[in-house]
Amino acid sequence: MKGLISRFLKGDIRACSRLISLVENNASLDDDALKDVYKKMGRAHRIGITGPAGVGKSTLIEKLTLRFKRDNRRIGIVAVDPTSPFTHGALLGDRIRMQKIFLDPDVYIRSMATRGALGGLSLKTTEVCNILDAFGKDVILIETVGVGQAEFDITQAADTILVVLVPESGDAIQALKAGLMEIGDIFVINKADREGADRILEEIKGVLDFSLPKDGWRPMVLKTSAISEEGVEELYKRVNEHKRFLEQEGRFEEKKKERIKNTILDYMKSALYEKIEGNQETAKLLNRFTQEVLSGNITPLKASQELIKEVYGRD
Amino acid sequence: MKGLISRFLKGDIRACSRLISLVENNASLDDDALKDVYKKMGRAHRIGITGPAGVGKSTLIEKLTLRFKRDNRRIGIVAVDPTSPFTHGALLGDRIRMQKIFLDPDVYIRSMATRGALGGLSLKTTEVCNILDAFGKDVILIETVGVGQAEFDITQAADTILVVLVPESGDAIQALKAGLMEIGDIFVINKADREGADRILEEIKGVLDFSLPKDGWRPMVLKTSAISEEGVEELYKRVNEHKRFLEQEGRFEEKKKERIKNTILDYMKSALYEKIEGNQETAKLLNRFTQEVLSGNITPLKASQELIKEVYGRD
Repeated sequence: MKGLISRFLKGDIRACSRLISLVENNASLDDDALKDVYKKMGRAHRIGITGPAGVGKSTLIEKLTLRFKRDNRRIGIVAVDPTSPFTHGALLGDRIRMQKIFLDPDVYIRSMATRGALGGLSLKTTEVCNILDAFGKDVILIETVGVGQAEFDITQAADTILVVLVPESGDAIQALKAGLMEIGDIFVINKADREGADRILEEIKGVLDFSLPKDGWRPMVLKTSAISEEGVEELYKRVNEHKRFLEQEGRFEEKKKERIKNTILDYMKSALYEKIEGNQETAKLLNRFTQEVLSGNITPLKASQELIKEVYGRD
Repeated sequence: MKGLISRFLKGDIRACSRLISLVENNASLDDDALKDVYKKMGRAHRIGITGPAGVGKSTLIEKLTLRFKRDNRRIGIVAVDPTSPFTHGALLGDRIRMQKIFLDPDVYIRSMATRGALGGLSLKTTEVCNILDAFGKDVILIETVGVGQAEFDITQAADTILVVLVPESGDAIQALKAGLMEIGDIFVINKADREGADRILEEIKGVLDFSLPKDGWRPMVLKTSAISEEGVEELYKRVNEHKRFLEQEGRFEEKKKERIKNTILDYMKSALYEKIEGNQETAKLLNRFTQEVLSGNITPLKASQELIKEVYGRD
């Protein structure tokens, strides 16, 4: 492990990939050498790109990546979205279209396996971002779609959140009021050359006018057409503006700390579950308690207390 | 508490509401009397209705509710969806449209607060369903939308999952392949009087033909027009067919046990977090460790182990 970390710190991309794979595969990373990874992280701007499927999030990410590169920023892309062309399931066509960034050695692309990762997805995604951050990426773009009920909170994982919609999302505007409206720092109407773009823009503006600022930031809305690159420059400016805002307010540091704190808590949970389900006797006990709850002999809360007593000797 | 439970078991709807509120507000329900609640549950058919915003999930739930009522089934509706008309944020218009079920004393409607409940949402929703189940509801309809990144796994919470789409979702079919396709037991093309319904139906069929059965169940797709009630009878039959299938295969019992098991594990996690963050000294320690991770003095994993040692005396 020590050799791996040392190669990682020297900028060996294969060591970076290997480290990420270890995290993804639940390998125990209990090694002192890792301290240096966490020490080096904390600079990257983590940008979440979210919105329904089919709104062009990936194309937008592609264009933003190319724009960031013109300013010599090193980019990581993490797709927490089984529908993303960045995932293994992508159609070849998408990959060909995006080969500019797929073939760029300075752009690191990683997709997270969301199925089966329930419960650990937040922890793993954050850790993958941490590793890319420590590896020297200046910007990490996290693509996420909510539809699959992934147990993943983008507001925790990212510093800046872009909510992407299309003119046809208009019907859903009432719905959006309650859901996505609360999490966006910047709203993007993509495919804005289509009919209805101005209407949805005004509608979102209308909703935002009645919303409170987010920690002092007043969310904005703008139009893009990612394929023709229209509006991408403006979006790029706004994204950087939001980062500067976070830094000035001390929020950038705060978010970083919150993420570490949640990572520690997540590891505690994992250790607890592993202690229960990884041990034959306690796993049996859990099954017995389950049966006894259904028989009316114990409540789930009481059972949880008994199990904690069993594994830690006290509750 | 004992009095409350006793009134609950006698069918007092106000006691039921009170119990649900206690769960929602994180009240400690550490009471022996609750054992009887868990003992009584386990009969209800839990049906998850999921899909993007704007596809008519609520109208479909309304029609299914009315159909179930014709067979004298008692219904509970739980909305884990900030955009649902069943939530407090609903427009008055929606409520008026649905007054048939809003005003029906036999239909119990409850919406879950999803914002701020992150982390505890699965536990709370399951517990609310447990209470409604024990109260004697035959069917519990759980409405959920994934867009808000709620930390909630409908595949855990429900026995049967309906994925609702509209003809316009056609564009997203490629996307759906990877996400929603895996979780649906029954796919519903709602608003099927609109153009493109047959095309999306065939597309979904095509995808399903290449998918493996779900624990022996071959997912199906059908068309509805909830407002005109077309297709609702067929959907109703299929939903009941899926329940019979689960029962015959022993899956209905299994899912019930899995839910109880996860409830116990969730309570353990909550207790752990409460122990850390609810105590000034350990909360301070967590903050100190956070700082030390950033300084490169400790890894998050090691910090988590130290914290467990601190609160439980061993790791």
